[in-house]
Amino acid sequence: MSEATTTSRTADALVTRGASQPFERSTIERRAPRAHDVVIDIKFAGICHSDIHQGREEWGSALFPMVPGHEIAGIVSEVGSEVSKYSVGDRVGVGCFVDSCRECENCKAGEEQYCLQGEVPTYNGKQYDGEPTFGGYSTSIVVDENYVLGIPEGVELDVAAPLLCAGITLFSPLHHWEAGPGKKVAIVGMGGLGHMGVKIAAALGAEVTVLSQTTSKEEDGKKFGADHYYATKEEETFEKLAGHFDLIVNTVSADLPIDKYLGLLGLNGTLVHVGIPEGDSSYQAFSLAGMRRSMAGSKIGGIRETQEMLDFCAEHGLGAEIEVISVDDVDKAWDRVVDSDVRYRFVIDVSTFGSSAA
Amino acid sequence: MSEATTTSRTADALVTRGASQPFERSTIERRAPRAHDVVIDIKFAGICHSDIHQGREEWGSALFPMVPGHEIAGIVSEVGSEVSKYSVGDRVGVGCFVDSCRECENCKAGEEQYCLQGEVPTYNGKQYDGEPTFGGYSTSIVVDENYVLGIPEGVELDVAAPLLCAGITLFSPLHHWEAGPGKKVAIVGMGGLGHMGVKIAAALGAEVTVLSQTTSKEEDGKKFGADHYYATKEEETFEKLAGHFDLIVNTVSADLPIDKYLGLLGLNGTLVHVGIPEGDSSYQAFSLAGMRRSMAGSKIGGIRETQEMLDFCAEHGLGAEIEVISVDDVDKAWDRVVDSDVRYRFVIDVSTFGSSAA
Repeated sequence: MSEATTTSRTADALVTRGASQPFERSTIERRAPRAHDVVIDIKFAGICHSDIHQGREEWGSALFPMVPGHEIAGIVSEVGSEVSKYSVGDRVGVGCFVDSCRECENCKAGEEQYCLQGEVPTYNGKQYDGEPTFGGYSTSIVVDENYVLGIPEGVELDVAAPLLCAGITLFSPLHHWEAGPGKKVAIVGMGGLGHMGVKIAAALGAEVTVLSQTTSKEEDGKKFGADHYYATKEEETFEKLAGHFDLIVNTVSADLPIDKYLGLLGLNGTLVHVGIPEGDSSYQAFSLAGMRRSMAGSKIGGIRETQEMLDFCAEHGLGAEIEVISVDDVDKAWDRVVDSDVRYRFVIDVSTFGSSAA
Repeated sequence: MSEATTTSRTADALVTRGASQPFERSTIERRAPRAHDVVIDIKFAGICHSDIHQGREEWGSALFPMVPGHEIAGIVSEVGSEVSKYSVGDRVGVGCFVDSCRECENCKAGEEQYCLQGEVPTYNGKQYDGEPTFGGYSTSIVVDENYVLGIPEGVELDVAAPLLCAGITLFSPLHHWEAGPGKKVAIVGMGGLGHMGVKIAAALGAEVTVLSQTTSKEEDGKKFGADHYYATKEEETFEKLAGHFDLIVNTVSADLPIDKYLGLLGLNGTLVHVGIPEGDSSYQAFSLAGMRRSMAGSKIGGIRETQEMLDFCAEHGLGAEIEVISVDDVDKAWDRVVDSDVRYRFVIDVSTFGSSAA
């Protein structure tokens, strides 16, 4: 065993030291790979809106210093002595968690995202041994092989990165609630999450409708596979589509008038929240009972399902629509995400750590 | 064809003439039976809380004069010329609706309770020809055979009457969401609806828990088949049972702290509202997404499923727990229902129309 496997190593990283602090280039320590660890040279890291919620403490207090990023794509650079799933040179990804208890019924069922002990988040969290976790805005990461995904040939690393959160967040409910041929599916919102929902639902064979505030992105939506596109600013949209859908996936984290959206579902239809508003929302129970509708929520996906999603995306040639940025543009990109000024996902080119800071 | 099939006939009925008016004994006209109509001598009529909501205009304006009652059990006294399903002397029931469009996809699927044209309610509604409907607080009713249920031997007419609304309201979601062996089911509330939920869920083989404000009805709950009984007034109930249930059926129409109840569901668990609060309720989307939970609503059941429910109840010896009252006690009984002072359903003995008024 070479020395490399027993000592920690330094990685470049973008670090923020508080909720109102800009990023600075810095270095962090990554642990020496254990027997089942994979060391990954990160190539691309997507910027997820939840990075901002956490980095700005909009979801409660966070752990600083913080290195965000849970949409990670890269190349295996080293493996621990007992790693069997990956080899040096493999194209791999890491998503929203890097460990889970592996013992609870949900972990055993392959639903690690619902680990009853609490899965270990890729950043802004702690390993079970108490060590803080640092995410993908960095040149490398060390992760147990069981929490590493393979990125198949057929999907480039840059457009693959956002699949690790945005992709699986949409694939999992579409898969769970059986979007497919003969099903009428609406995607609410055409941002980073929503545009992946359109692509995946269309590839699954469903009849896909986008419900967006305006029709400003209609051309894109149709290009991604939407059959129909309606503006929710227009009241007549809700009249015209009353009782129409089998499944609505809501990617918007603003507080929507949920009864109006429930009214768009037919018998046994389901509205799934994947955009999670802060605080309370309101509904009328009769909006559910009147047509045996359901309202549900879904959170990313398990490791097995995430791999299925990546394989599915490769098979169908799906990736995120991205704008690649340098490590020095992340503060600005966060502001643009908040302003919905991105089509449709920022991805940090981690190789730009190699260039001099602006 | 005898003359009886071509002229309307008079029935005794309890009539209320306005939201704050007491009942009076009166008479109403029932239509002459058409080719597919069944004339039913009503023997028993259950009192449902929704009778009160409608009779007192708590659900919006109502049609007066009103004869409430949609939990009807009786004997066929006459049949139209083309009736094939029932014969004179048959034990039959009528539930919450007496017709539906028969053409929409939901009617065709046997889910007439979700008729897209709107099913015809047994009272406080209008037939498609515009004639008002009058319910079961009466000596007879005339209903199309396709909306009449057979009450099997093995369940008495008095305890069968409440099955036509309370019974099916609980059977349908328990059946739809697959309560049965290996499933942990909670019934919230132990009133007219809830007590039927306990009996049916237990007979379906589920592990049944009652969640009631206090444990005052625990002995009854266990007798009806509950395995466990918890008081929701005790905060520790929500800690102890966190993540425990596969299915929660909420029969309470008061506005509950729904996130606390959602927290009692495990992965993929569903909370179904059958008690419908007026106005808005609030929830947090994360209560759903955190464990891929669903919140749904359900409304009575279709004709086919109602028949299945009656057959199931007969097979398992299930009926409602009732207090039989005279037609002159209905005003008082309504007040007692509002005060939750009934174990567990009032049933009007319609033969008391034959006795002199109090």
